[in-house]
Amino acid sequence: MTTQQLIEQIKIKKSFLCVGLDVDLDKIPQSFLALEDPIFEFNKAIIDATHDLAVAYKPNTAFFEAYGIKGWISLQKTINYINENYPDIFTIADAKRGDIGNTSSMYAKAFFEDLNFDSITVAPYMGKDSVEPFLAFKDKHTIMLALTSNEGAFDFQTLDVNGKELYKQVLETSKSWKNSENLMYVVGATKAEYFTEIRKIVPDSFLLVPGVGAQGGSLSEVCKYGMNDNVGLLINSSRGIIYASKETDFAEKARAEALKIQQEMAAIMQS
Amino acid sequence: MTTQQLIEQIKIKKSFLCVGLDVDLDKIPQSFLALEDPIFEFNKAIIDATHDLAVAYKPNTAFFEAYGIKGWISLQKTINYINENYPDIFTIADAKRGDIGNTSSMYAKAFFEDLNFDSITVAPYMGKDSVEPFLAFKDKHTIMLALTSNEGAFDFQTLDVNGKELYKQVLETSKSWKNSENLMYVVGATKAEYFTEIRKIVPDSFLLVPGVGAQGGSLSEVCKYGMNDNVGLLINSSRGIIYASKETDFAEKARAEALKIQQEMAAIMQS
Repeated sequence: MTTQQLIEQIKIKKSFLCVGLDVDLDKIPQSFLALEDPIFEFNKAIIDATHDLAVAYKPNTAFFEAYGIKGWISLQKTINYINENYPDIFTIADAKRGDIGNTSSMYAKAFFEDLNFDSITVAPYMGKDSVEPFLAFKDKHTIMLALTSNEGAFDFQTLDVNGKELYKQVLETSKSWKNSENLMYVVGATKAEYFTEIRKIVPDSFLLVPGVGAQGGSLSEVCKYGMNDNVGLLINSSRGIIYASKETDFAEKARAEALKIQQEMAAIMQS
Repeated sequence: MTTQQLIEQIKIKKSFLCVGLDVDLDKIPQSFLALEDPIFEFNKAIIDATHDLAVAYKPNTAFFEAYGIKGWISLQKTINYINENYPDIFTIADAKRGDIGNTSSMYAKAFFEDLNFDSITVAPYMGKDSVEPFLAFKDKHTIMLALTSNEGAFDFQTLDVNGKELYKQVLETSKSWKNSENLMYVVGATKAEYFTEIRKIVPDSFLLVPGVGAQGGSLSEVCKYGMNDNVGLLINSSRGIIYASKETDFAEKARAEALKIQQEMAAIMQS
């Protein structure tokens, strides 16, 4: 999917919601456990119930890998289901990959070609040659960690380097990389005031924003400081939507939660 | 495997060689492609030919994931084969994972429990709560990126923070984390002189050292500056061993390359 197509979808749906698919078998309706592929069936139900309210889905690879080969099959079925039934959805493999060049090329092949995701999250620590292999794919997007939403973000990301925080240096340096127009960035919602500074460095880039909801971030604050002319934000919600209920009404409740967020987004986009 | 058991294996085998299993189907004898699981069969042949000369094997997850479900099956079969046939081998999942706490817990479950690796490589960018879930596993080891062997290492890892390079800050900070005795570190061989400084910060930790061989690092230089009383080093070689030949003699040639390195290691341990 091109960036322009993503922007169009946001306008059509009046939504910039991304639903995170972090399926924990302990947290889903226990009736699913009798099915052959509970993870996929749960994802399918969530996707069917929310696809018109969300522009993106973000399967978190850890929650699939934890179940080994069965988990990988569930991941494959989930991404195939989205691509076949809802081709207008932007798909994100939340994988946080990154390694030396030839290894990153293999990860890019895995997620962009074999699984056919539109994008993948990557870690910046190993620098340019660990990220550029992902950037080489046309109409695929590489979402690099900048400032994350967890407590550990303050261990290294906000350390002072050359008179600025490390995450700002990461943003700036990445702009010089080949095909950097294919970069998006992860910026946690728990620190809304940081968005002003971040927008000075990457005014046009899409930011994937975790941390609204379960982790305590505020949607309106993030939009106030982080939105650009094309919206430029994908706000992720995982647990708040997919675990809205553990009962048989889980899909309805998930839709109700997604609708609440989408309506708030529509109001913000209109204002 | 405990650290003490690893140290004993190093003494018994007079080797601190780790063989990296980065199987690229384009680079292995083409006769394997007719087999049902070429990646596993190739790994098996390499392992059988070198297991008495190496103390560790390091499958690189990217090279399995690139083949989707089939690749994940090959990974499972490879780790099972090692665990069943060579229980004295230390196994490393070269996965470079790391995410917020509940996600890192799922990755730890995937690699330590489901696949039963002794260790996994992780990235430090997200800080303490992204790494501690891995450290919580008894007799499992978390090998964190400190200073990598690629060109991009100089993009962020060597930036000055608080008057020292970032990778030194990463090493120092990590020592305060819970169960930090389960930490090892990745330090690239391409910069042997850096080991002196690193040993001041982590004198006792094991260091996993890529970059000897194909990437140009020198074994004797690394040992000169990086060895401690327990050796404290795992020197990785991937391409130099597994692709020593593309012909039917690939296993023999792999063994010859491994033997050359093991003999050099034995000589260094004796001196």
